[in-house]
Amino acid sequence: MVDGVPFSGEPRDSREAIMQATFCALQEHGYAGLSIQRIADQAELSKSTFYHHFDGKDDLLLSFLEYILDTFDQLFQLESSGDPHNDLKTFMSLILGDLPHAEELPDRDAALRAYVELRAHAVRTPEFRAKFTETDHRFTDRVATIIEEGIDEGVFADADPELTAQFLLTMLDGIVLQSATREDDPVEPMRESLEAYIDEQLVVQDET
Amino acid sequence: MVDGVPFSGEPRDSREAIMQATFCALQEHGYAGLSIQRIADQAELSKSTFYHHFDGKDDLLLSFLEYILDTFDQLFQLESSGDPHNDLKTFMSLILGDLPHAEELPDRDAALRAYVELRAHAVRTPEFRAKFTETDHRFTDRVATIIEEGIDEGVFADADPELTAQFLLTMLDGIVLQSATREDDPVEPMRESLEAYIDEQLVVQDET
Repeated sequence: MVDGVPFSGEPRDSREAIMQATFCALQEHGYAGLSIQRIADQAELSKSTFYHHFDGKDDLLLSFLEYILDTFDQLFQLESSGDPHNDLKTFMSLILGDLPHAEELPDRDAALRAYVELRAHAVRTPEFRAKFTETDHRFTDRVATIIEEGIDEGVFADADPELTAQFLLTMLDGIVLQSATREDDPVEPMRESLEAYIDEQLVVQDET
Repeated sequence: MVDGVPFSGEPRDSREAIMQATFCALQEHGYAGLSIQRIADQAELSKSTFYHHFDGKDDLLLSFLEYILDTFDQLFQLESSGDPHNDLKTFMSLILGDLPHAEELPDRDAALRAYVELRAHAVRTPEFRAKFTETDHRFTDRVATIIEEGIDEGVFADADPELTAQFLLTMLDGIVLQSATREDDPVEPMRESLEAYIDEQLVVQDET
């Protein structure tokens, strides 16, 4: 990892190596084609080192989701400005895979595709459903806090921070699902529509 | 099928029997557990009758997506009132699996879960990606037409019908994705938020 930028440079330890390898294997083979052998090969580790850390594929992927969330937090810390309106836009850009230091990081489309495959796995796997419920709540809390700060500072109009945050994140999930499963890419027009929604519904209009 | 209500009563022919069986098998076993044998067993048809209609699992599922779209059209025809604001709400209810004649039909959660699994399959299958791109455009056109009618009748404020339709459908996709992959069910609060969005952004406010 280089200067706190996740997924960049050499992994610090075997755990980080496994996480990077998981991401690569997921991009290349998808959830169905993911195997412990492929991840161990990619990470240049033995299967026994792998099993020292994880019980199996789903245990690994649950840790991987935690790792992605931590990564997300680190990136957001790097990028956040303290200005609520800007921070909201930064948060959206991060979710949509528009990552800073882009040349170091996995490509956007691959990240969104991996997310949709893992998320769909939650349809039939209770542990994944529990994990995504938890991460959705954490993301909602985070966005609600930004909205609350904006309301306190008079930048945002009075709104229910929690419901507004949930609305924004649901819309982002819709954009990601469509982007990963369509031939044309609706990210840009929908991002603009969402920013227009924020400007019209949330941002206090300057009446001077 | 009873009185034009899809998925109800006895199938009319072996094709409809296969479609109903596909839906049941998809609910029960998910995409990964779906097999021709299981569908043939469920439909009480031989595998050779099956292969008379379809080349294999993915060919069947592409036809199944067409069938679902046609089903959706029939239900919408049954329910639409000619009033644009009502029709928009009806369309949303149908997408969210809040089906009319509910006692005859598959349960809502099963339908949303089947949709998410099939949609995620498009991440790695170009034919599915092409099909979902096409169905997304057909749905967008349909909603854009309702919005256009509303604008012409003075019920809706001036807006870009196509972009607005895309925004609404993207939000619905987000609600469906979350609903199928979370322990708690965010459909109701998000449906209310989306209706509030339509009321505030689209519906012309009565100023009397």
